[in-house]
Amino acid sequence: MTDIKQQALACRDAAHAIAQLSTDAKNDLLRSMAAALEADADAILRANQQDLQAAKAKGTAGAMLDRLTLDPQRLAGIANALREVAELPDPVGLVTRREVRPNGIAIERVRIPLGVVAMIYEARPNVTADAAALCLKAGNGVILRGGSEAIHSNTAIAAALKRAISDAGLPAAAMTLVEDLRRETMVELLQLTDIVDLAIPRGGEGLIRFVSEHARVPVIKHYKGVCHLYVDKQADLALAQRLLLDGKASRPGVCNALETLLVHRDVAARFLPAAIEALRARKVEVRGDQATRALVPGVAAASEDDYAAEFLDLILAVRVVDDIDQAIEHIRRHGSDHTEVIASEDAASAERFIKAIRSAVVMVNASSRFSDGGELGLGAEIGISTTRLHSYGPMGAESLTVERFVVRGEGQVRHEDLLG
Amino acid sequence: MTDIKQQALACRDAAHAIAQLSTDAKNDLLRSMAAALEADADAILRANQQDLQAAKAKGTAGAMLDRLTLDPQRLAGIANALREVAELPDPVGLVTRREVRPNGIAIERVRIPLGVVAMIYEARPNVTADAAALCLKAGNGVILRGGSEAIHSNTAIAAALKRAISDAGLPAAAMTLVEDLRRETMVELLQLTDIVDLAIPRGGEGLIRFVSEHARVPVIKHYKGVCHLYVDKQADLALAQRLLLDGKASRPGVCNALETLLVHRDVAARFLPAAIEALRARKVEVRGDQATRALVPGVAAASEDDYAAEFLDLILAVRVVDDIDQAIEHIRRHGSDHTEVIASEDAASAERFIKAIRSAVVMVNASSRFSDGGELGLGAEIGISTTRLHSYGPMGAESLTVERFVVRGEGQVRHEDLLG
Repeated sequence: MTDIKQQALACRDAAHAIAQLSTDAKNDLLRSMAAALEADADAILRANQQDLQAAKAKGTAGAMLDRLTLDPQRLAGIANALREVAELPDPVGLVTRREVRPNGIAIERVRIPLGVVAMIYEARPNVTADAAALCLKAGNGVILRGGSEAIHSNTAIAAALKRAISDAGLPAAAMTLVEDLRRETMVELLQLTDIVDLAIPRGGEGLIRFVSEHARVPVIKHYKGVCHLYVDKQADLALAQRLLLDGKASRPGVCNALETLLVHRDVAARFLPAAIEALRARKVEVRGDQATRALVPGVAAASEDDYAAEFLDLILAVRVVDDIDQAIEHIRRHGSDHTEVIASEDAASAERFIKAIRSAVVMVNASSRFSDGGELGLGAEIGISTTRLHSYGPMGAESLTVERFVVRGEGQVRHEDLLG
Repeated sequence: MTDIKQQALACRDAAHAIAQLSTDAKNDLLRSMAAALEADADAILRANQQDLQAAKAKGTAGAMLDRLTLDPQRLAGIANALREVAELPDPVGLVTRREVRPNGIAIERVRIPLGVVAMIYEARPNVTADAAALCLKAGNGVILRGGSEAIHSNTAIAAALKRAISDAGLPAAAMTLVEDLRRETMVELLQLTDIVDLAIPRGGEGLIRFVSEHARVPVIKHYKGVCHLYVDKQADLALAQRLLLDGKASRPGVCNALETLLVHRDVAARFLPAAIEALRARKVEVRGDQATRALVPGVAAASEDDYAAEFLDLILAVRVVDDIDQAIEHIRRHGSDHTEVIASEDAASAERFIKAIRSAVVMVNASSRFSDGGELGLGAEIGISTTRLHSYGPMGAESLTVERFVVRGEGQVRHEDLLG
């Protein structure tokens, strides 16, 4: 048997022990894991220095290097995030529905853990702790396969967390860090259909496509967020401009940032000049269609590609539309099923937009930047799904469980006549 | 573009129209589909005769031929099943949770259709109508790929149903029957990741494994049901015998029939002789372990394989266990995550069993035969999932939808300071 299969089997066995834990036992464990991270701070930061040196030697810089970097403050943030997961409600055992059938059997739908979750991720070492915490909170085992660029940091973080698990008298294999980073080993992990219940890739589009193509286990993923703001003809234009600036300029590098602005032609002349001026004051480059360019001087022409782009940068594509139907049609063609926003004071338009748009999150008069597990009340988030199955949108601990049936009777059978 | 891709794209576009329909419009459509089946009864039965003749010429007989056979009564049953689906609650638009966040944004979790569902199935022509009805009820498009043995029946049924869809002014592509039955065409369908949202295989283990291996779209499936009854030391033994006979002998060929009986050793001597006598009176062959054979003469020895077998026949594997832990361990090793039953009057034992067993359905003092969408209150059933993701256990119309987020605000943003 290969090492990775052996590790995965050990994780599955350990997951069984985690699934049985009480809420208090899990929360105590999460707090011990936070304390273990703090106790190992020096070792973790030293390990991170090794990763950073290797990255710099390879010419890594900018945002990539920043994502890899740990410092005492960031490490404290990771430990606190574990304590916050301890404070979240426990989804396991939650009874979501009860029904007594005419024959007297009592049916409950009860949440149970998924089993073993494989996280495949890049760069950010905090994912090692965050994902472990959420998976354990939901009663699962977790197999963590981070990137080679963060291997020393991930190993040091995992060592601290595993010690906390062992010290609690639990099998440390419940949290398994894959240290063999060969691609073929990852592929094998992704094909262990009888052991791994779910794979969640987090990282660049290349990684996510690789996981999707090679996995035989279920995968929940999102490729990109091409989020739209549609300014309706009955919009409060001052409110719409607030949503626009917050959506585009507050943190352009995240998946819930706006990438395209659609404006109803009846309000375009009133909205666009001031809105684009405000965007420019925040260093946003605007690329527009003919109508936008006719209204505002100096706007570059948007290409067809611009309307499908996740810029992750201070760039915005703008288009003037004839009506709400054209806006919906545009989003249907170019959208990524992530998050769309309508600014409108007309309740009928808002409802029509909600119904016609099939994205995971639809906002009415609220910023796309709220499309986030924390902001939507899930507590921490393990990812955002644009897979329309199981979970759609931000995924918290509950998304790491599934409902099953528990039936209690008093000897009911289906074929009484057989028993006579 | 290949034909199958073109058909799938047309189905996706049509699904968009179905997703927007009101509950009344969908229910009217389902009733019209039932009427269309009745109007076409002669044509459908003639087509079925073609399939039956071809099957007989190939030497098909027994249960397989029976599953393929339609007659006026069965056809009436299929039409009535459509009317029953019309009576079910509509899962689309269901608000499952509401929350207002401290910043005032109001969050709803709302069910929406999955999009396009591909059903891959064998033999039974009723699946063509049943699956179409449930998928449409849940606002989805459906692509039906039945087996070659039922192609004439399926085509005639689909023609009637599609006419009803067209007559309602809706795009008939919402229900697409694949007539090109080459394996490579099915594989292509299963890899249309941007078009097909879910594949559900129904049929023999070979078909299901083929679909799982070749699909790139999400698959929900179950391979087999190896259902267990555990008779606890505190069981009501008369009640336990009722569950045993109903579970094993009422319909042995279905996936929720019992395959293995586990008996606590403290009650084995009191339970097994009478129970096995009653089983034998119903023509059930018993294969047991050493302890069972010591208690009851004439019991054949059970092999290790017998404990993992889905007999789908009047055969039962029996084992005497030391305690509930050994029963749980046995089920964990040999079970199929489908349905397990405990007979016990001890509430603590029952809770322990429920918690330790991770099957989709756990029954306390009720027959395994209730593990069925209709019996568990789901109305019709599109399949039973032993995939611990999205849906686990019997799947009704609701399992063909997913929750998404709808957020309503009054201009809330995340970074107020950016707007000044």
